[in-house]
Amino acid sequence: MSVLKASAAAGQRGPVDHDIRSQIVEAADEHFSHYGYGKTTVADLAKAIGFSKAYIYKFFDSKQAIGEAICARCLGSIMETVDEAVAGGKSATDKIRRLFNTISALSVELFFSDRKLYDIAAYSCAERWPSSEAYVARVEAMLTAIIREGREAGEFERKTPIDEAARAIMMAFQPFMNPMMLQYNLDAVPDGANEVVSLVLRSLAP
Amino acid sequence: MSVLKASAAAGQRGPVDHDIRSQIVEAADEHFSHYGYGKTTVADLAKAIGFSKAYIYKFFDSKQAIGEAICARCLGSIMETVDEAVAGGKSATDKIRRLFNTISALSVELFFSDRKLYDIAAYSCAERWPSSEAYVARVEAMLTAIIREGREAGEFERKTPIDEAARAIMMAFQPFMNPMMLQYNLDAVPDGANEVVSLVLRSLAP
Repeated sequence: MSVLKASAAAGQRGPVDHDIRSQIVEAADEHFSHYGYGKTTVADLAKAIGFSKAYIYKFFDSKQAIGEAICARCLGSIMETVDEAVAGGKSATDKIRRLFNTISALSVELFFSDRKLYDIAAYSCAERWPSSEAYVARVEAMLTAIIREGREAGEFERKTPIDEAARAIMMAFQPFMNPMMLQYNLDAVPDGANEVVSLVLRSLAP
Repeated sequence: MSVLKASAAAGQRGPVDHDIRSQIVEAADEHFSHYGYGKTTVADLAKAIGFSKAYIYKFFDSKQAIGEAICARCLGSIMETVDEAVAGGKSATDKIRRLFNTISALSVELFFSDRKLYDIAAYSCAERWPSSEAYVARVEAMLTAIIREGREAGEFERKTPIDEAARAIMMAFQPFMNPMMLQYNLDAVPDGANEVVSLVLRSLAP
């Protein structure tokens, strides 16, 4: 989780007062989830929370820094569940299924059960915020480790350069992982997502 | 091409006067490519072309019907090039490469060399216009035929239900085919697209 934590800290400044910082993030999360991230200013947010704008700027240097913190928290919670799900896998094949099934199911739940959180997630992807880039990098690293494990166990082929294999799989799974793409594929979770995972597993077969 | 032609005709009405109809489509294409599709009204368009609004409505029953005709023309031209490229393929494997390489390269060229054409393409996908749905169906049908050919020639595995194989490949290639997704993957054409095609071919291996 260290990469996500480091990125969450970007744009945060002033006294490291965990309580107030997370109080702001929590209130902002609540506020954005009602009114949307795009249309809210820091002034609106300050008014809603009951803090002065200047006080908020002691902790975050911009609205994006607050958005980043919300995003990092949300993606961090996805990664925690993914970590657990993958750890319970019985084989590399099983781990790949768990990895992608968990990601697509949780992404639908977190980004689309509340459309307003989709709003922040979309900004985060479109503008390549560090939180979102770090998340993708984390998933790709986890995937690479599982492929390596599967190769060592003889479950997967070994000819394709491992980086290429992982990169291509990440790309092929974008429709179910990237919130901006996922919004058009909500009907295809879980069935379509499962079919892509099966395709991925056939591509990994020795 | 009959499916695309049939869909292009939806929403068109009045005397079947090919010349005037295509004159309107041509002028609208030109106008939208400068001013964008989203923000232009039929009244703006009529003014720019020099026809009355009522006259345009003799041929098309809405702005979308004109957009549909432009889209169908554009997607039809992609399909023509794709047909030719695939016909020149030496094996099913080669045909799959040609199919997807042509689609990703032409989509980048047609939708993004002129950002305003992306505008129509995005509406077409997001709102599932018949032209865009017919295009996807055409590509999927062509892909299914190539997979069948490859299975018969012993190039591809035969265990996976052919519909599932085709559906999953279409989904995995969405990042390079769907204009709304492609806009975020422009840097990944052609290398990333090629890697996904290689993944697809590994998944088809017997």
